[in-house]
Amino acid sequence: MKRVLFTPGPTEVPSEVLEAMAKPLIHHRTDEYRQYFLETTRLMQEHLATTHPVLTLSCSGSGAMEAAVVNLLSAGDQAIVVEGGKFGARWGMIAQAYGVTVHTVSVEWGRVATVEEVESALAAHPSAKVMFVTHSETSTGALFPVHDMARVAKARGVATVVDAVTSFGVYDLHFDRSDVDGLVWGSQKGMMIPPGLGFVCLSPRGWDLVKESKLPKYYWNLAKAKGALEKGDTPFTPAISLVLAARAAMLLLAKEGRDPVFARHQRNGDATRKAVRALGLSLFAEVPSNTLTAVHVPQGVDGGAVVKTMEQRYGVKIAGGQDRLKGKIFRLGHIGHYDEGDILRLVGAFEASLIDHGASAQPGAGVRAAQESFRSSKPSAAARVG
Amino acid sequence: MKRVLFTPGPTEVPSEVLEAMAKPLIHHRTDEYRQYFLETTRLMQEHLATTHPVLTLSCSGSGAMEAAVVNLLSAGDQAIVVEGGKFGARWGMIAQAYGVTVHTVSVEWGRVATVEEVESALAAHPSAKVMFVTHSETSTGALFPVHDMARVAKARGVATVVDAVTSFGVYDLHFDRSDVDGLVWGSQKGMMIPPGLGFVCLSPRGWDLVKESKLPKYYWNLAKAKGALEKGDTPFTPAISLVLAARAAMLLLAKEGRDPVFARHQRNGDATRKAVRALGLSLFAEVPSNTLTAVHVPQGVDGGAVVKTMEQRYGVKIAGGQDRLKGKIFRLGHIGHYDEGDILRLVGAFEASLIDHGASAQPGAGVRAAQESFRSSKPSAAARVG
Repeated sequence: MKRVLFTPGPTEVPSEVLEAMAKPLIHHRTDEYRQYFLETTRLMQEHLATTHPVLTLSCSGSGAMEAAVVNLLSAGDQAIVVEGGKFGARWGMIAQAYGVTVHTVSVEWGRVATVEEVESALAAHPSAKVMFVTHSETSTGALFPVHDMARVAKARGVATVVDAVTSFGVYDLHFDRSDVDGLVWGSQKGMMIPPGLGFVCLSPRGWDLVKESKLPKYYWNLAKAKGALEKGDTPFTPAISLVLAARAAMLLLAKEGRDPVFARHQRNGDATRKAVRALGLSLFAEVPSNTLTAVHVPQGVDGGAVVKTMEQRYGVKIAGGQDRLKGKIFRLGHIGHYDEGDILRLVGAFEASLIDHGASAQPGAGVRAAQESFRSSKPSAAARVG
Repeated sequence: MKRVLFTPGPTEVPSEVLEAMAKPLIHHRTDEYRQYFLETTRLMQEHLATTHPVLTLSCSGSGAMEAAVVNLLSAGDQAIVVEGGKFGARWGMIAQAYGVTVHTVSVEWGRVATVEEVESALAAHPSAKVMFVTHSETSTGALFPVHDMARVAKARGVATVVDAVTSFGVYDLHFDRSDVDGLVWGSQKGMMIPPGLGFVCLSPRGWDLVKESKLPKYYWNLAKAKGALEKGDTPFTPAISLVLAARAAMLLLAKEGRDPVFARHQRNGDATRKAVRALGLSLFAEVPSNTLTAVHVPQGVDGGAVVKTMEQRYGVKIAGGQDRLKGKIFRLGHIGHYDEGDILRLVGAFEASLIDHGASAQPGAGVRAAQESFRSSKPSAAARVG
């Protein structure tokens, strides 16, 4: 039996990426490495539609979030955190750990904050310097309208930093056309490589804030990282094999093309959502993201047992809920290297396991709905952008 | 032509380790991963002869250094930094970035600080809380007597934190028998895996300091990492493929056995040093480490050209000097997965390239001296411990 990851990260790693990591290690202070590193950076810039530097850090996505906080703020500064899940809450915890005063726009998990709610918070806290928002909230599967939020923040002179950990490679982030001042993401989601790299991209306004920032930093010093990047270098020894993996992955994304990548995620998301509904289940997220489909565990069904059977009997690994959602939702990930056949595998295992555990779903209904969804949608369907 | 790394890190990665990274990725919130992670941790504990938790962070060795600083100290605290090279200086820069008052015991690069010099500094700064020292200074190849230094520090109530980045896997650090309170290291040296993981191990006294520490931290929160480790977990998504690489590497080290590993590095170091001397060159470090052999570039020879030719013509990559030592020394790394044949390859390429660039070395003298060194030493020769 094959074993395939359909978790909201880490995601499946393409064989081209595994191969890049299996080669004998090269040294990072060589022209060969510098060329690969600069090429990877350029491919990420193209993917984000930005001319601004993309900084590669050796850390998880949370490290990249911390880097954004400590480089843009000073102790005593005020920040707004938009929170509707575990990762939104993390922005607040990081900022508070560094003595930043946090004003939270909190919505029930599964909901998304509206632009109006954000506008009220901005009005109520005119001294706020930065607003931290999550694009695709991994804990709930909800997609936040970060670009609209950034627009209203900018109008009030507040910089917006977006956690794009679970949306890079899935949604068109079109950085330079947006009002977003900072993007952070990690390697193990839409980039389709193992965890261990974090990335940050700042706008010129973001870099202005870096100059004002007084929070202590050494490893996270982005100004140093920017200076080093100009020479194809990093301030500290980079996670070389992961950078070479990132190169292989970005070459795959570039070959497929930005719009086709985003459209594929839209089609995979649509098909999964339709399959879930056809099984008589309801979606958890108010505005579901194309990254993962969060589904209410139906009454009378043991959610943990469904997840376990999917893994052990069908070789398909999905995730359950985290924290307060433990046992209450399923999270079916479809970020990254998945095609129509993969989605049928995912949905097929999901419906089979549900039925194994006494759910009243109609056998075959999920897969059939997914097939119909693929058949009726154009492969080039434009993706929504939250 | 084969290409082999003899840099002071990253070092050669054994094929067993590359294979571990080339397998399809597994998820980290699974019993399978937890078992691998706990096994890796246990193997590192055995290697260090410690019962205290070994914490795995997704970062470079510098990140692990920063984690030690921000977990043991508070702003305004005093610390002693023993510095005789680039990495000793890094301790001071990190501590200062966080508002710690640093008293530096500075020795010329290439020299090692003596226990007496450290004793004077301890006497002069009785309020110091922590002393930071480098075991094997990568920039100079010098080995510091950290265990003796830790003993005198402990006698004055000062905790010692050792940068073992370039000595883990090379020297017996025997943590629980030592007076050291904190060890940090990275993945790409004696552990023989690619860069991207940092490690920290603290003594009970070190953990007491963690409770007092008020420096801001989130990603580097070691108390959280300790709590998570008890469940086979990490606070943030771990660099999964590197952890599996670490497991493969630690299995290799355990199979070879601690003492044979340290003795092999002693023999490799001895042979390299004898070869260099037989070529008429002088060692740079006052007390040379078994990790790398730093050698003065002889007068009239272009050091950079020698390094380049070694790489391009002989496939052997060594390092030159860093910062103020650029062009002044060669650094021949022999940390990790190297045997007698590898050392002959290294020394052979070095002497050939020197001669190519006009050095007056006698052809064959280096390799012959290395051979004699191996022949006259016992494979089980006990290693010195700095």
